[in-house]
Amino acid sequence: MLLNPNMTVGMTESMAHVAKGVLSPGSTLLPFTAESGFPYISSRAEAQVAGAIVLDMIAQHRNKVDAVVIAAFGDPGLLAARELFDLPVVGMAEAAMVSALLMGQRFSFVTFSRHMQPWYEQSVAQAGLQSRFAGVRTPEVGFQSVATVQEELFDVLRVLVQKAVVEDGADVVILGGAPLAGLAQRYTDAPAALVDPISAAVTQAEAMFRLEPRGAHAGSFARPPAKQSVGQPIALSARFNHTD
Amino acid sequence: MLLNPNMTVGMTESMAHVAKGVLSPGSTLLPFTAESGFPYISSRAEAQVAGAIVLDMIAQHRNKVDAVVIAAFGDPGLLAARELFDLPVVGMAEAAMVSALLMGQRFSFVTFSRHMQPWYEQSVAQAGLQSRFAGVRTPEVGFQSVATVQEELFDVLRVLVQKAVVEDGADVVILGGAPLAGLAQRYTDAPAALVDPISAAVTQAEAMFRLEPRGAHAGSFARPPAKQSVGQPIALSARFNHTD
Amino acid sequence: MLLNPNMTVGMTESMAHVAKGVLSPGSTLLPFTAESGFPYISSRAEAQVAGAIVLDMIAQHRNKVDAVVIAAFGDPGLLAARELFDLPVVGMAEAAMVSALLMGQRFSFVTFSRHMQPWYEQSVAQAGLQSRFAGVRTPEVGFQSVATVQEELFDVLRVLVQKAVVEDGADVVILGGAPLAGLAQRYTDAPAALVDPISAAVTQAEAMFRLEPRGAHAGSFARPPAKQSVGQPIALSARFNHTD
Amino acid sequence: MLLNPNMTVGMTESMAHVAKGVLSPGSTLLPFTAESGFPYISSRAEAQVAGAIVLDMIAQHRNKVDAVVIAAFGDPGLLAARELFDLPVVGMAEAAMVSALLMGQRFSFVTFSRHMQPWYEQSVAQAGLQSRFAGVRTPEVGFQSVATVQEELFDVLRVLVQKAVVEDGADVVILGGAPLAGLAQRYTDAPAALVDPISAAVTQAEAMFRLEPRGAHAGSFARPPAKQSVGQPIALSARFNHTD
Amino acid sequence: MLLNPNMTVGMTESMAHVAKGVLSPGSTLLPFTAESGFPYISSRAEAQVAGAIVLDMIAQHRNKVDAVVIAAFGDPGLLAARELFDLPVVGMAEAAMVSALLMGQRFSFVTFSRHMQPWYEQSVAQAGLQSRFAGVRTPEVGFQSVATVQEELFDVLRVLVQKAVVEDGADVVILGGAPLAGLAQRYTDAPAALVDPISAAVTQAEAMFRLEPRGAHAGSFARPPAKQSVGQPIALSARFNHTD
Amino acid sequence: MLLNPNMTVGMTESMAHVAKGVLSPGSTLLPFTAESGFPYISSRAEAQVAGAIVLDMIAQHRNKVDAVVIAAFGDPGLLAARELFDLPVVGMAEAAMVSALLMGQRFSFVTFSRHMQPWYEQSVAQAGLQSRFAGVRTPEVGFQSVATVQEELFDVLRVLVQKAVVEDGADVVILGGAPLAGLAQRYTDAPAALVDPISAAVTQAEAMFRLEPRGAHAGSFARPPAKQSVGQPIALSARFNHTD
Repeated sequence: MLLNPNMTVGMTESMAHVAKGVLSPGSTLLPFTAESGFPYISSRAEAQVAGAIVLDMIAQHRNKVDAVVIAAFGDPGLLAARELFDLPVVGMAEAAMVSALLMGQRFSFVTFSRHMQPWYEQSVAQAGLQSRFAGVRTPEVGFQSVATVQEELFDVLRVLVQKAVVEDGADVVILGGAPLAGLAQRYTDAPAALVDPISAAVTQAEAMFRLEPRGAHAGSFARPPAKQSVGQPIALSARFNHTD
Repeated sequence: MLLNPNMTVGMTESMAHVAKGVLSPGSTLLPFTAESGFPYISSRAEAQVAGAIVLDMIAQHRNKVDAVVIAAFGDPGLLAARELFDLPVVGMAEAAMVSALLMGQRFSFVTFSRHMQPWYEQSVAQAGLQSRFAGVRTPEVGFQSVATVQEELFDVLRVLVQKAVVEDGADVVILGGAPLAGLAQRYTDAPAALVDPISAAVTQAEAMFRLEPRGAHAGSFARPPAKQSVGQPIALSARFNHTD
Repeated sequence: MLLNPNMTVGMTESMAHVAKGVLSPGSTLLPFTAESGFPYISSRAEAQVAGAIVLDMIAQHRNKVDAVVIAAFGDPGLLAARELFDLPVVGMAEAAMVSALLMGQRFSFVTFSRHMQPWYEQSVAQAGLQSRFAGVRTPEVGFQSVATVQEELFDVLRVLVQKAVVEDGADVVILGGAPLAGLAQRYTDAPAALVDPISAAVTQAEAMFRLEPRGAHAGSFARPPAKQSVGQPIALSARFNHTD
Repeated sequence: MLLNPNMTVGMTESMAHVAKGVLSPGSTLLPFTAESGFPYISSRAEAQVAGAIVLDMIAQHRNKVDAVVIAAFGDPGLLAARELFDLPVVGMAEAAMVSALLMGQRFSFVTFSRHMQPWYEQSVAQAGLQSRFAGVRTPEVGFQSVATVQEELFDVLRVLVQKAVVEDGADVVILGGAPLAGLAQRYTDAPAALVDPISAAVTQAEAMFRLEPRGAHAGSFARPPAKQSVGQPIALSARFNHTD
Repeated sequence: MLLNPNMTVGMTESMAHVAKGVLSPGSTLLPFTAESGFPYISSRAEAQVAGAIVLDMIAQHRNKVDAVVIAAFGDPGLLAARELFDLPVVGMAEAAMVSALLMGQRFSFVTFSRHMQPWYEQSVAQAGLQSRFAGVRTPEVGFQSVATVQEELFDVLRVLVQKAVVEDGADVVILGGAPLAGLAQRYTDAPAALVDPISAAVTQAEAMFRLEPRGAHAGSFARPPAKQSVGQPIALSARFNHTD
Repeated sequence: MLLNPNMTVGMTESMAHVAKGVLSPGSTLLPFTAESGFPYISSRAEAQVAGAIVLDMIAQHRNKVDAVVIAAFGDPGLLAARELFDLPVVGMAEAAMVSALLMGQRFSFVTFSRHMQPWYEQSVAQAGLQSRFAGVRTPEVGFQSVATVQEELFDVLRVLVQKAVVEDGADVVILGGAPLAGLAQRYTDAPAALVDPISAAVTQAEAMFRLEPRGAHAGSFARPPAKQSVGQPIALSARFNHTD
C-alpha cells in the first residue's frame, strides 16, 4: 500500500512510477490518494490533521495489503499507525534516514524549499539520529510549482548535493520531498551515495514484511485496548473499538 | 482557555477547580471539554486524532481568550497549535517540565499507570530534556477508575514520590496525568519540590501572556500560508484558509 | 527581590523599570544593588566571587521578600542559592531560556559583545538545553559604554535578530545581557518571538511563588546541615550555621 | 555473499540456513567461512585482527557477488570495507539495529553471555543510537558450547525477552550473536517485535543492492587513493594498490 | 602547589603524603590549607564560597609554584582559576576522570556518602563526559568521621568497587573524596583499574606543566581585562586589577 | 615505547626528537617503526590493517618497555591493545584530546589535509567528547610532501589556529597529524593553548605508568581467555594463546 496523505493524484502517480522500479519480483503496489485534507502538506498543523486521515485510510484498506508506506515527507501519523495496526508501516523520511545509516557515517538532506528545513530537522531529532546528521541544504531561489520543481531546480539541487558532501561532510545525501521522487536516480555522477526516499520506503517496507515483526501485546507499541469514540470515520472508529 | 481534549466533563471540572487556586488576580478561566474524540486519551493513535480536535476547538473559541492551556497529558496538538494561532498555547506536560527546571536539577514523573510511562518518556525526549530527567515511577497495583484513582492510590503514590527523590535522585517530582490534578498540593510533607501540571500550565500560560510573544512571520513557527482543505470542521477550515 | 550582583545602580534602575511593566497586580518589586564585587561582571572569575556575594545579599534580605531574581546574565550563585534558601530563586539566563522553550522549538541569543559568547554557550550547556539551541549572534562592531549600548547598536542588533531567525533557524530570540533590558519590547516588527530576560525572570519568579515549591529536605537540593564557617559575612555565616 | 569472519563452518551453515528463509525470489546466497583468525571472535583484539581478514575475503570474492553481509556480531571491518569496496556491505549488528528502528521506539539486545555486553553497548554507541536503546539482558547461568547454546538457554532467554519488554521498556528485542541465528522465529508468542540479526542483515543487503548506492569519490567514504603495502595478502594488497 | 580549600590540616597532610608517592624526580610539593571557609566542603553553596577563597589563595602564592592542584572534590573555583592565572590549574575530580578516559571505556565513582552523589554526577555533566560514565556507588551504612572513614568502610567500599565493575559495567573506578586519598593503592586485588584522585591530579599537573600551555589572550579563557573590585582580599583584588 | 604504525622511519625520528623534549628525568624512549603495512596510514581501511600490526609489535617488544605510545593519528589498534596487554597503552589523538580537556572548555583540531577531517571527527565521537569539540580546520591549499608539509604550510596553519580560536570558539587547539609533530612549540605567539599530540602522548603515557593501573580481570577490558589462532604472527599468536 502506497498511501499518499496529500490529495494530489499526480504526485501519487509519479511516486508509484518510481516505486515500481525497485519493487522485488512478486510484489504488487497498491497506490491510494487521500480524499480529504490538503493538496500538499507543508506544516505541523497540516500534518496533525493529515495524520488522522492516514489512520482512517489504513483502517479502510488494511485487509488488502501486507505493508504500508506513508508517502509524505515528515511521516504524518507514522507512530500512531504503528501502534494501531498489525502490519508493517514505514514512513518516507524514516526509511530514507535508516537506509542512509547503512551507506555511510553522516547523511544530509537536500530539498527544494527553505520552508521545509525545520520540519526535516525535527524528523531527525524525533528519530534520535542527530549524531549522524550533517544538515539540510535548500536553494536560495524559488520555483513555479511542485509539479515541475524537479525540472526547474535540476541544476541548482545538483550543486547543493555537491556542497553537502564537500562542505558539510555528508557521506550520503537524501533528496527529500515527494516532488523530488526519482531525482536521485537521475544524478548519475553524484560524488557520494544518494537516497531516493520513496524507493527507500518501498524497499524497507518489503524488508519489514519479510522479517515479519509481530504486533506487540506489551510495551509502548502494544495495541491499545478497545475504546469508543465520537465523530470519527467509520473504519477508524471500528478499529479503535476493536469491532472491525 | 482551559481546553480538555478528553470528553469527560468531570475531569474538566476538577482541573478547573485546581487551576482557579493559582490564577492571578484579574484573570478568568474559561473551561471547554471536547465534544468528539475519546473519553480519556491514552495512546499515540488517540492523541493523533485528539490533536486535530484541539486545533478545531481553538479555532472556534480563540477570539474569547488570551491564552490556551491544552489540558491533557502528552500535550496533543501543541506544536501544531503554536504554529497555527497567534495567542500563547501551553501544554500540561511541557509546562510542568519547564517549571521543574526552575526548581532543581533533575525531575521525575510519578503517575498512576505503567501504561503511560513510554508516553511520558517520549514527551521528555521531544522536549530535549533527557539530561534533566530522572525517570518515571508507576505503581505495581491497579485501580478502579480514573475518577477515583487519586484517592485509591494516595498512599502508594506518596511512596513513589519518596523513591523518586531518594533512589532516583530527583530534585523535583511531577505528578502527571489529569486524574492527579491537585494531588501535589495535598502531599504537604514531600521530601522535595512537587509540580502539579495543571497549576503549572495555567501559571505558565499567564506568564506567556504577560511576556507577549508575537506570532512569527518567519522561521519554523511562521503562520502557514492560506490553504484550502477538504472534509475539515468549519472553524478549522477557515483558519487554514485565512478566511476567519 | 530584584538582586543586581553588579554594583552599577543605574543598571538596577533600568532593569527595575522594565520589570515593573510585567509585574502582576498586587506584586511589589524590591530592587537591591551589590555593594561589593564589580561594576559589571563579565568573566567566570568575577562570577565566582559575585556568586558568593549573591548568597550574602539573599541571606540579609530574604525575610522581606517572597522570591528572588538574580539579575545578572550567567546567573551567578543561582544553584547555590536554590540549595541554601527556602524561597524561589530565579536567574535571568535560565528564566529566559525556559520561557523560550514555551514559545518555539529553538532559541538563539543575540547580545552586544563577542566576549560574552562562551559564557552564554556555557549557560545553555549547564541547563542541558543544547538540543533546543540555535546559537549566539554578536555584532562585529564595538560600542562606547554599557549605559548607552542599547541605543548605539539598536539597528545592528535588529539585523542580528533577523539573521538568527532566517539563517540559524531560531524560533525565539533572547536579547541577552542586563544592558539590553527592555530592548525586546522595542522591536515591534520582529520576525519571531523575542524574550527580554529581566521580564522573563520576574514573570517566572511570580510563577514559582504561585506554585509554592517547598524547600527540599532530601535529594540534591536538600538544605545543607548546619556548618560553622570562618571569614564569611554575618548574615551568610548565620545561614550556613542555621542560627538565623 | 554471507561472510563469516569466524572459522567455524557449522556456524556459517546454520546462518546460511536461516538466511535462505528470508531471501527474496531470484537471489542466491554464497556463504564463505574465514580460513584464518579465530574459531569464534569475542573480544576487541580478536575483532581488530578479524576485520583485516574480512577485507581480504571481500577482495578475493567481490567479483562473484552483488552485496556482502559480515556475519559476526560486532561487525568487524565493516566501516573499512564500506570505504574500500564499491558494492554494498552490511553488518549483522548494524542491520539488526536499523531494522529495529522501523519497528518501534526503543530496542534491546538479549544475548547468551554477559561477556558480550560491553561489545554490544559499544556497537550502539558507535552507531549513535543510544537514544533508541533500552539495554542488554544476559543470563545469569552459563552454557556448555556455542553450538548448543540456543537449545540450552531456550527458556532462559525467553524470560529475558519478556523482561526487556516489560521492565526495560523495549518495543523491539534483538536476539544477538551468531549462535542465536533463527531463534527469533521460534519464539512465536513474544510480547513485542523480535529481530533475528542474520535475517535482518540479508534483508538489508538486498535492500541496499536494490537502492544502488554508488561508491563515493568524495567525502569520508571516498575510495582511498592507490597505495603500496607490505606484508598483506595478495588480493587485499592489489585492492589497496588499485591493481585488481 | 597542593591547595586544599577545606580548612582541615590533617586532610592536607594525608593528601600530601599520597601525592608524594607519585611525584616525579625533581618535583617538590608545596601544600596549603584554606584559612577561611569550611572544615569540609560538601554542598554547592559551600563550594561557591570556597571557590572564591581558592582564587585568593592562588593569587597569594602563585609566584612560588609552577602548577596548582585544587585538592577538594568538585573542583571549586577551577574554571575561574584557569581563566584568571597563567599557570596550569588542575582539579581532583577532573584529573581523575581524564585519567580514567585513558584506562578504559567507562568509569564509575565509588565514594563514602550518598550525600555526595549528585555533586559527582554534576561534575561528570559539567565535563561533558556522561557517555563515558557508568554511575556512582555509595554505601548504605554511615560512618563516624571523615578522618577514619577510610578504615571504617574499607571492606564495604571494596564490595562497591566490585559491583561497579561487574554490575554497572565500569572499566575504571575512581575512589572519590579527599578522605579516601590513597585507598586505591591499598586495594591490590581490584578487578579493574582504580584511580586515586589526588595521585591523578598531581600527575596531571606535572603533565600540564611539561606541555607548557600558554595563558590565552583570546577565546573563552582569555585573561579578563583589568577591573577594579570592592571588598575583595588584597592579593585577589590586585590580580583582578592587574596590579600584582 | 614509541610505536609508529607507519613504515616511514623519518617520521619516527622526528617524533622521537620532539618526544624527548618532554620526557621526565630518568625515562628512556624506545622508538619502533612498523615493518609492514603502509608508508602513511590515511584511511579507515588502512587503519584496520595497521591496528593488527600494532598488536603484533607490542606483543614482540612489551617486555622491554613500561608503557606504549601508538604514534599515528587515529590511534589504530588502541582499544584492542588496551584489552590485550597489561601495560599502559596511549594513543596520540586520545592523549591530545584528554590533555586539552585540562586546558580549556572546547578544543579544535588544525591539520594539514581536508582528507583527514572525517577521521578526526570520528576520533572525537568515539571518545564521546563532542560536547567539548569546536571543529576541525584544514587548509584550502595543497602541499608537496608530508616530510616538508610543516614548513610549506607554516603560515597557513598559523592563520587556521587563529580562526579556530576567534571564529569557532576553541580554547585549545590541537595540531594534529604525525607530520606536524613539534609545530605547537614553534607558534610562540598563539592566542590560546596549543597541544602537540606526540608530546601529549608521551606525557600521558608517563602519567599512566606512574598511576599504575592494573590490568583488568573483570569488565569490558578484562584480558580475553586463551584462544588459538590461525595465520597470525608468532608473537601475537602466543599472546592470544597465553603462551608467551
